[in-house]
Amino acid sequence: MDAAALTAARQALTGAAPLVHCLTNTVVQTLTANALLAVGAAPAMVDEPLEAEGFAAVASAVLVNVGTVNQRTAQAMRLAARSAAAAGTPWVLDPVAVGALPYRTELAAELLEARPAVVRGNASEVMALAGAGTGGRGVDSTNEADEALDAAVALAGRTGGVVAVSGEVDVVTDGTRTVRVGGGSVLLTRTTGAGCALGAVVAAYVAATGDPLTGAVAGHAHVALAAEAAAAVAGGPGTFAPLWLDALDAVTDLSAARVDP
Amino acid sequence: MDAAALTAARQALTGAAPLVHCLTNTVVQTLTANALLAVGAAPAMVDEPLEAEGFAAVASAVLVNVGTVNQRTAQAMRLAARSAAAAGTPWVLDPVAVGALPYRTELAAELLEARPAVVRGNASEVMALAGAGTGGRGVDSTNEADEALDAAVALAGRTGGVVAVSGEVDVVTDGTRTVRVGGGSVLLTRTTGAGCALGAVVAAYVAATGDPLTGAVAGHAHVALAAEAAAAVAGGPGTFAPLWLDALDAVTDLSAARVDP
Amino acid sequence: MDAAALTAARQALTGAAPLVHCLTNTVVQTLTANALLAVGAAPAMVDEPLEAEGFAAVASAVLVNVGTVNQRTAQAMRLAARSAAAAGTPWVLDPVAVGALPYRTELAAELLEARPAVVRGNASEVMALAGAGTGGRGVDSTNEADEALDAAVALAGRTGGVVAVSGEVDVVTDGTRTVRVGGGSVLLTRTTGAGCALGAVVAAYVAATGDPLTGAVAGHAHVALAAEAAAAVAGGPGTFAPLWLDALDAVTDLSAARVDP
Repeated sequence: MDAAALTAARQALTGAAPLVHCLTNTVVQTLTANALLAVGAAPAMVDEPLEAEGFAAVASAVLVNVGTVNQRTAQAMRLAARSAAAAGTPWVLDPVAVGALPYRTELAAELLEARPAVVRGNASEVMALAGAGTGGRGVDSTNEADEALDAAVALAGRTGGVVAVSGEVDVVTDGTRTVRVGGGSVLLTRTTGAGCALGAVVAAYVAATGDPLTGAVAGHAHVALAAEAAAAVAGGPGTFAPLWLDALDAVTDLSAARVDP
Repeated sequence: MDAAALTAARQALTGAAPLVHCLTNTVVQTLTANALLAVGAAPAMVDEPLEAEGFAAVASAVLVNVGTVNQRTAQAMRLAARSAAAAGTPWVLDPVAVGALPYRTELAAELLEARPAVVRGNASEVMALAGAGTGGRGVDSTNEADEALDAAVALAGRTGGVVAVSGEVDVVTDGTRTVRVGGGSVLLTRTTGAGCALGAVVAAYVAATGDPLTGAVAGHAHVALAAEAAAAVAGGPGTFAPLWLDALDAVTDLSAARVDP
Repeated sequence: MDAAALTAARQALTGAAPLVHCLTNTVVQTLTANALLAVGAAPAMVDEPLEAEGFAAVASAVLVNVGTVNQRTAQAMRLAARSAAAAGTPWVLDPVAVGALPYRTELAAELLEARPAVVRGNASEVMALAGAGTGGRGVDSTNEADEALDAAVALAGRTGGVVAVSGEVDVVTDGTRTVRVGGGSVLLTRTTGAGCALGAVVAAYVAATGDPLTGAVAGHAHVALAAEAAAAVAGGPGTFAPLWLDALDAVTDLSAARVDP
């Protein structure tokens, strides 16, 4: 993906200020909302079943993250995913800890039927969701991103969308084209919810660009560039988080990102 | 409101260290609790229906914020609001996204019957709650605060309390007197939960002063002064939040606030 | 507890990177997860009853914190505590506001039957749990830690585990040996969730060391040392939190902690 496409994506996000409806886990809601605000999107966390269906239909994009799912929020996720699909609204699935926990593994498989524009997870999660692995022990992946490439391609074939696998180098594929995004910082892995916030940023970019592959790559590039800037000045994993939000706001040009090809 | 009243309000808050029972959304609980601690109040987040009724009766003030309301917490809110009203405990209603989402719009209308001492929201929310508008698209307002003045006055007439509308200049009215609070920082709008935390600080001040108008104005003034101090040294929206909490703690004098009249 | 034992505990934690299953309150989940990551443990927040039982059996340790308990999460807590007990997995109970609120007071008494390896609370909570007091007004203690020593010893006798009482000087006892941990910073009391995160760090240390008394003391020592380092550079309670996380990461030696005897 060339620098012009990334530059255009950043401009599209600024112009669109998309409303991202997040059904996400309670550990990361604050960071996710602040990351969306920092990149210029508008977050709204709505996970009551009586509200989620209608709201998903009017949002610019929807994020479904099963990190702390329960039976009530699972129902809201089902309604929101179907509503988004019916309205043609792009939605992103983050299958946190799928493979490690049976209840959410079944739920994520069911949600796939609503064809997410993007699935974003770590290698263990993507492999488990594709039926190619048994998952890790939770939120940390025990596999490198490239180990999940075959699973990601297969999964993209089933959803008709994009699958993004986070790792030291992120792998983003629509089943045909595969793009890698390098850079970033290990401090992202020591900040709870950084990956979850990435999923939300991807949702915002997909809404703004209208293209799941471009949006997913741009989201990963934006997060990686901001992480590098923050890591250069952070004193540790605690001060990294607010500095990363500052940098998400300050990154107005994605052309320096390590995107291949 | 003169400087002496604001100075007295700050001293009253320090002296009272009020216990503020918060039924608030899961995105902003942490910032809200830390903001209350920073200004010298004691937060307690209790939103289980089996606990909320009894706790509201012994707290110094109650905050009800419908940001991520669900059917369980809605029931806790009903019980807490009625319990506060019966006990003569002041309570604050923050009608997040009312007007944009039917379920919570009905709930907020029902909660109004328990006569909140203060309603604090943005212009869209206050207009929707007063029946004068159809609301925005969520947490961000599409109207300036002064556009909601008529609605705020009407709403104050119905509740017998105060209505505060947040904006570039905040408008606070009891239906008869109207006070404006300027200053602050645009970074408040880029920090998720800053407005929600303001509602909690207002609840603390109302408990400490015993007067909804004085308390609401003092709360807005305190938050605005702290925001100005933090914005002067913040590197962006991420580092603003912890610096704002530092400043909420450091502001011991409200006499410099831009309060009119 | 001598310096060698503390040094060994820190090394054990680094080596084990224990997976800590947290059923904790929504106000503090983010800080708790980040604190666990900072000390080198792996957090996983899972509080759906359909998932909690199985996950508790495979985790390295379990934390149960009743801060924002509701009827759904209470059921998850019961299942997780019993599952941990049956699997021989150490678990920590943090009885937030027990004594002040009847519903959770009954729940905590019931959870005690699953014999937590460590109970960690403030003096009011420990006294209430031991049946020796009527509790405070919520999360803040109205008693010094040493006032709860008799209650802590009695409670340890009932659980067969350790009871840790937080205060200006923390008191940790297994009913026979009593160890005090000094230092720390008053800013811990002005940071929502610092005590709750301490409970999680204790759970990680108990898993890593295999000994509840050593683990509890090491956890308190680690948190206190990090708090001193952060307080020396923080500008107030807001900037303290990220700096404390930095310091939790940076503290690789506990031998300087004020542990007596």
